[in-house]
Amino acid sequence: MKNSRRPSRRQLLRMSAIAVGGGLLGQKVEAAETPGKLGIPLGPYGERSPYEKAVRFTRQSRTPETGSSFTPLADSVGTLTPSSLHYERHHAGIPTIDPAQHRLVIHGMVDRPLSLSVADIRRLPSVTRTMVLECGGNSGSEWAATTGPDVQRSFGLVSCSEWTGVSLAQILKEIGVRSGASWVIAEGADACRMMRSVPLAKAMDDALIAYGQNGEALRPAQGYPLRLLLPGWEGNTNVKWLHSLKVTDQAYMARDETAKYSDLMPDGKARIFTYRMEAKSVITFPSGEQTLPGPGLYELTGLAWSGSGKIERVEITTDGGKTWVNAQLQEPRLPVAFTRFRLPWRFDGKDAVIASRATDETGYVQPTREALIAVRGTNSGYHFNGMKFWKVHADGKVSNAEV
Amino acid sequence: MKNSRRPSRRQLLRMSAIAVGGGLLGQKVEAAETPGKLGIPLGPYGERSPYEKAVRFTRQSRTPETGSSFTPLADSVGTLTPSSLHYERHHAGIPTIDPAQHRLVIHGMVDRPLSLSVADIRRLPSVTRTMVLECGGNSGSEWAATTGPDVQRSFGLVSCSEWTGVSLAQILKEIGVRSGASWVIAEGADACRMMRSVPLAKAMDDALIAYGQNGEALRPAQGYPLRLLLPGWEGNTNVKWLHSLKVTDQAYMARDETAKYSDLMPDGKARIFTYRMEAKSVITFPSGEQTLPGPGLYELTGLAWSGSGKIERVEITTDGGKTWVNAQLQEPRLPVAFTRFRLPWRFDGKDAVIASRATDETGYVQPTREALIAVRGTNSGYHFNGMKFWKVHADGKVSNAEV
Repeated sequence: MKNSRRPSRRQLLRMSAIAVGGGLLGQKVEAAETPGKLGIPLGPYGERSPYEKAVRFTRQSRTPETGSSFTPLADSVGTLTPSSLHYERHHAGIPTIDPAQHRLVIHGMVDRPLSLSVADIRRLPSVTRTMVLECGGNSGSEWAATTGPDVQRSFGLVSCSEWTGVSLAQILKEIGVRSGASWVIAEGADACRMMRSVPLAKAMDDALIAYGQNGEALRPAQGYPLRLLLPGWEGNTNVKWLHSLKVTDQAYMARDETAKYSDLMPDGKARIFTYRMEAKSVITFPSGEQTLPGPGLYELTGLAWSGSGKIERVEITTDGGKTWVNAQLQEPRLPVAFTRFRLPWRFDGKDAVIASRATDETGYVQPTREALIAVRGTNSGYHFNGMKFWKVHADGKVSNAEV
Repeated sequence: MKNSRRPSRRQLLRMSAIAVGGGLLGQKVEAAETPGKLGIPLGPYGERSPYEKAVRFTRQSRTPETGSSFTPLADSVGTLTPSSLHYERHHAGIPTIDPAQHRLVIHGMVDRPLSLSVADIRRLPSVTRTMVLECGGNSGSEWAATTGPDVQRSFGLVSCSEWTGVSLAQILKEIGVRSGASWVIAEGADACRMMRSVPLAKAMDDALIAYGQNGEALRPAQGYPLRLLLPGWEGNTNVKWLHSLKVTDQAYMARDETAKYSDLMPDGKARIFTYRMEAKSVITFPSGEQTLPGPGLYELTGLAWSGSGKIERVEITTDGGKTWVNAQLQEPRLPVAFTRFRLPWRFDGKDAVIASRATDETGYVQPTREALIAVRGTNSGYHFNGMKFWKVHADGKVSNAEV
């Protein structure tokens, strides 16, 4: 069945070469253009082409220091997000921090409290890992019947970077965590002192204190000069502009783990401390507000990720969920990182409903929206990881499928 | 021997925590700073911190459209190079190309010549790979006894990005290469029409036509909107602003493969078409012009790469080459990509001469400068991949070791 439904890469190439607008075959080819004038000189810190226009989307707001900006996923290629386009979720704006003045204090129930400068931290044993950050509220609009019209506005609070930093567990082991301790309270140096309670077990597992992003220092919008990274956990717990880690024997029940980032269930009770982001995927091409130029073969593509490890499989439907085929997965597949998936697909000029479904290495399968709502209701705006269906209309226009 | 010479990560952490400037232990810790004012709002396309100053180095020139700019390797973290800091080597400046007007013509000894728009190419089956580009002239100053004073100026014509594009082999197979063809002439759309002859076998192997870099479009300085990528081959053959690929039965003996990018040997004859970049490594910390704040434990780190595949091993000497120990290698190790290496090292306040030595998966071992010169002499400025020795002076200053 797989082969019968799925055009080969060779078929895709042939069809593209023949079918793409303007006609490629037998066209008069002319390599010579008039040689131009000298171009732009060498420079210190490069910029993108003036023809590239992709930007983060921000809703109009009278308080733009608090809110979200969305990564333009439809324009993404490969598996990384440019730092300039990494999604944002700020609660009191981006502080401008002099790294020479900044310190991280690690205190509370420890034997030897520490105050570390950024230079101190950069001197410690370092580690690099490519990792997704996803806002707990990403695709929260999918809970309602009216969601964003494109993949940026509906799924764009997720990004993937290569991070470099130091192991928090190594520091905690060194300074001695006292008996009875069970939590670490992480606080940022933004104006609202954004704070989250982190179980000590996570801090002692794979938590990082990051200073590097995509080969240079963290960007200010991602926590410069220091950010707590909790692999696989909702973005909000990855505290930016990190300046304090206090070891305690209780959670602090801070604003952003009680009034926010908790999941109100149908019975009126709220789940709290729902840290881990489950497996998820979304087709980025074709996706909402795009238009296919006409019938023919295309490469359908998108991104999958899981807070629980590697992506094991991504299945695609092009008939509204009746049948599914496996997509090709870009290697290397790294845990808690974007996995790019691809599938040749023939658009025959009739309505088609497409979606992707991710399975991670634990065997967890991305659910339908309906299955999620059956369990969680629609009171919460957080932790939506349901499948995303797009409708490709006969005229090539793409929109949300009816929900 | 290994354990006796090499401090553990735990030792490193402890020593750092105790020794780093200012004293960390028992210091009064104070997490509370005065809460600040609201920070910077959400934004469309982010920038780096104003405190970050790393830039590419460019020599003063009256013709800055032709020349090189060097990646600040001493400031690098992780395994990627930010696109804004990717090294440059231009021959007639950076053309400003409208992707809607640009075409790639594939012609010559083919059955069905093609003229492809950028949109056509983006519709084809795509592939993503992380890959180093290195100028054939990188570290050419090492052939002479007087080289650059720091790692940027001596080794900075190398960078690593995640690239996305399409397989050239798939296109060539589709359009039919005629019997007798053996070369592909790649030409850029810059003012000088930079041109290189590429053996057909490479074009039919792993060559890519790239349109994506680090998750967005190629940067103009790296070939926007299309660049030929020849994994493992000298940077100059990875033709930027690609607008023509002509299949032929002979090389064109273009300027940049005869007057340039050829290796003049001691006997006065020149090696030409020396495409592949051999295994190489360099310590980036501590490196030239840096100063260690004092004796103590440090994490020594650097980058290794090979045009022939994965890095298998990096050894470090801290006694001028008498003894060597294996460094830790950051995973995943990808072929023809940067591999970050790290080693805890105790600086005891006495002169020390340090270097790294890479071995790739083919078993090739990075040679000494002396071994290279014994074979190739010093007539050529290209393809230097010898070991790089730094001297850490008793006062903590770092310089080139005497050569």
